[in-house]
Amino acid sequence: MTIIEPAAGPVLPPDVDERTFRAAIAAFGDAIGDENVHVDDEHVRPYDDRFPVTDGDEFRPSAVLWPGSTEDVQAIVRIANEHLIPLHAFSTGMNLGYGGSAPRVAGSVLLHLGKRMNRVLEIDERLAYAVVEPGVDYASLYRAVQDSGAKLMIDPTELDWGSPLGNTLDHGVGYTPYAAHAMWRCGMEVVLADGSVLRTGMGGMPNSDAWHLYQGGLGPSVEGLFEQSNYGICTRMGIQLMPAPPESLSFVISFENEEDLAAIMDTTLPLRIGMAPLQAAPIVRNVTFDAACVSTRDHWYDGEGPLPREAYQAMMTELDLGYWNVYGTCYGPRWLIDRYIEMIRDAYLAIPGARFDTTETVTPGTPRAELLAARDQLNNGIPNRHSSAVFDWFPNAGHFFYAPVSSPSGEDAAAQFADTKRISDSYEIDYLAQFIIGLREMHHICLPLFDTADPDSRARTLEMTRELIRAGAERGYGIYRAHNVLADQVADTYSFGDHAQRRFNERIKDALDPNGILNPGKSGIWPARLRGRGL
Amino acid sequence: MTIIEPAAGPVLPPDVDERTFRAAIAAFGDAIGDENVHVDDEHVRPYDDRFPVTDGDEFRPSAVLWPGSTEDVQAIVRIANEHLIPLHAFSTGMNLGYGGSAPRVAGSVLLHLGKRMNRVLEIDERLAYAVVEPGVDYASLYRAVQDSGAKLMIDPTELDWGSPLGNTLDHGVGYTPYAAHAMWRCGMEVVLADGSVLRTGMGGMPNSDAWHLYQGGLGPSVEGLFEQSNYGICTRMGIQLMPAPPESLSFVISFENEEDLAAIMDTTLPLRIGMAPLQAAPIVRNVTFDAACVSTRDHWYDGEGPLPREAYQAMMTELDLGYWNVYGTCYGPRWLIDRYIEMIRDAYLAIPGARFDTTETVTPGTPRAELLAARDQLNNGIPNRHSSAVFDWFPNAGHFFYAPVSSPSGEDAAAQFADTKRISDSYEIDYLAQFIIGLREMHHICLPLFDTADPDSRARTLEMTRELIRAGAERGYGIYRAHNVLADQVADTYSFGDHAQRRFNERIKDALDPNGILNPGKSGIWPARLRGRGL
Repeated sequence: MTIIEPAAGPVLPPDVDERTFRAAIAAFGDAIGDENVHVDDEHVRPYDDRFPVTDGDEFRPSAVLWPGSTEDVQAIVRIANEHLIPLHAFSTGMNLGYGGSAPRVAGSVLLHLGKRMNRVLEIDERLAYAVVEPGVDYASLYRAVQDSGAKLMIDPTELDWGSPLGNTLDHGVGYTPYAAHAMWRCGMEVVLADGSVLRTGMGGMPNSDAWHLYQGGLGPSVEGLFEQSNYGICTRMGIQLMPAPPESLSFVISFENEEDLAAIMDTTLPLRIGMAPLQAAPIVRNVTFDAACVSTRDHWYDGEGPLPREAYQAMMTELDLGYWNVYGTCYGPRWLIDRYIEMIRDAYLAIPGARFDTTETVTPGTPRAELLAARDQLNNGIPNRHSSAVFDWFPNAGHFFYAPVSSPSGEDAAAQFADTKRISDSYEIDYLAQFIIGLREMHHICLPLFDTADPDSRARTLEMTRELIRAGAERGYGIYRAHNVLADQVADTYSFGDHAQRRFNERIKDALDPNGILNPGKSGIWPARLRGRGL
Repeated sequence: MTIIEPAAGPVLPPDVDERTFRAAIAAFGDAIGDENVHVDDEHVRPYDDRFPVTDGDEFRPSAVLWPGSTEDVQAIVRIANEHLIPLHAFSTGMNLGYGGSAPRVAGSVLLHLGKRMNRVLEIDERLAYAVVEPGVDYASLYRAVQDSGAKLMIDPTELDWGSPLGNTLDHGVGYTPYAAHAMWRCGMEVVLADGSVLRTGMGGMPNSDAWHLYQGGLGPSVEGLFEQSNYGICTRMGIQLMPAPPESLSFVISFENEEDLAAIMDTTLPLRIGMAPLQAAPIVRNVTFDAACVSTRDHWYDGEGPLPREAYQAMMTELDLGYWNVYGTCYGPRWLIDRYIEMIRDAYLAIPGARFDTTETVTPGTPRAELLAARDQLNNGIPNRHSSAVFDWFPNAGHFFYAPVSSPSGEDAAAQFADTKRISDSYEIDYLAQFIIGLREMHHICLPLFDTADPDSRARTLEMTRELIRAGAERGYGIYRAHNVLADQVADTYSFGDHAQRRFNERIKDALDPNGILNPGKSGIWPARLRGRGL
């Protein structure tokens, strides 16, 4: 964990003197109650990045606000405009590996939306959707749906503490047929930088019953604008939910060799692209990731340098896994599941050495069964935090992210694996990864684990990830999401047309937020006022 | 058809004198070749709205341009900025019922993108997508896919002359599992109002292979901005295609009574929302629409006033249809289709008087078989223009649109039907309609047919549609798309937050197009320069 040193006073935002800052804090207090405005270390430091790859000073906030309503957020935004206070709005701040709740600009005032705005506003079983505030996490959404009795299935992410609203806005993905979260969000309420409230799509029509049912409306579809951006603060969102299937059956398929990856991908694509027999995004996970979910690193190796071949072999043998392991689930009536399972099994077993199990055939009590059970939960909409065991892979372990998106071809997967493994080994950082296979694209989610208490480990992790981004971009592999410390570098790689995307994003930014108060620098988008200042 | 009178000279755009206009036309000619720039009636008048509900003068263009490339479009936009020429860009202009290729602002220069930019740029069978230019229509995309040998299925709209790119941008829908076109568009190239080119999402990453595979990228998802708007000119688009299913089977289900509508909807929703057994959007069509596809009105009635009860009864009897007829298709291996068909049949046959047929049971050679065959084609990705027979319902028939979106509930459908039928009857305009049932929403597509050569018929149609929009909005039913003549009225109905959507749209418009040259007034979005001038 990062070392907390007492600070002399709050870090001030750019262009703001202490007197102005104090005036803004007082105004925030008047607007939302002093008990919801904090500048003291005791309240502010817990918002530091839990897995920092730098010493964190450049991402130090000045204060935190706990709004209780959309009106509170409107009032805060108006005050921030008046005093030029940069606000760093976030839902739950549990976006670990992507900076958590730390702001991009030092001195920003944190807007912890989820602290008090954490209600499930609506669950509609018949039309299969829910409406959530930013602070609802997957665990509480799951409970709310269960308590309501609605036969609906949520699509959780890897860890249950994430916010469905926040995750969706950041282009997060899950593992059920509703895995592409951006595809199933519908209907937002957004506080704009001028303090006004926008309801998107059919939400513009008074009394419409289709706000959370139909993504369009009249004119442009603007919801995508609020994803991964700093154009507004989303205070509620509709999330469409899959009707709970009558039955399901999960499977794990293990493959012996590193080199099997290309064949796995090329087998997956035709099974997946028609949404049958692979109805949901399967994951292809390497054994190190699996091992880190059920054991600690020293159990396999305690020498210097990267994990040796023998360690991988031991993991595979002892955990009864392959080097790559595919996890997935079939849904529907049993007659359908049985046919789909058969088609899937037959396809993958054509790869020599492949081994196929379902929850019904796996040996109970084994790590293989435990790992499959954890996936089976997620794939059935039951959030858990099984994978959080990776934070115990070694003492003080935290993780970073490198996650390029590409075609789900064997060739791309093999190229990405080769580059990433080679570079990881050269930095002596373990390669833990899972590929998530959408319909036509894959996310290659790499979790570089590092010692958060060791400055050298932190620095190496950052340096390695920067190299991975450069090497990936050379081959056309773009990152789909970026930590604060990486945002400018990643934005730079989206360079077509002499950085046409950046110019476009900046133009929208300046139009919607002329004072540049909302999450400046997020995704590499800087407002005019702070642009080019090397923040 | 509308009466063409020789014009004295081109209608000039607002704020543009004849000298400036001539200079602009000359510059357009220098940029893209004089042979691609036309101001004469012979070339310009064919772009008039084919189904005008007014005398058309307020939607009269001044000239037409035929760009041949993205670079041409860039050059045109730069010249238009210089001379303040409003451009009305469109793909094929076959958006009949929504104004065709007529501009919102008189004197606009038409930018007929599809005239020369009509190539299918790419077809990828393995990753199941195509890349198209604006001028590709459904018929030619179908042929291109067939010619390539790729086992892919396109999702055509009702008539084969539409443009997949244009239709998608206007939130069009089809009838296969890929019916929600906006959901399957991926990767756009857009010429912005400043003449620069933006490639969206992964298109910003040089060498990415995921431009047409993954809708995201880094930062905001901006593609939705270019739908139904006037923020840029889309010059190419990726469209994801469904892998062709091994087999399919289409069905028609007929229901005897007007009052069955609510039960039909409430039966449909649970079958549809889980994407099985109704894998694609079914349509629920009234018998008048069906009749107009296979006969003329005078066959059923040649008196005054609305169609009498006896005429409906005669249609049902003679055409072997119900008052409502549901058409749909199941896809997959035969064992799956048989189970799904059984589930669908059993569910709908619970409604008294319902009759169920598939393409295998319907009596060949009957109108019922012909209508089912036409739907079977569309639902299998084979474009046709079977429904264009409605333009022969009576002499000089053209159609308008009234198409609200709402929850797909029986209650909403019954309320919409009651209002629309009552108002249609009072204006003596036939009610022709089909409901298209998405997962959680329905489009109620009403086609008021009128005599395009009769000023009174035109005026009544416009007046009736304005009343339908008002009546619908009172109940919360919003229109998903608007004809030029209706755009301001419809935009007004999206009034939440003192017209927050309009203010937001205008702010983006002014940022991206400060001179207001792109499709001013489209979807009720006016640029600052032309706002509030009663155009």
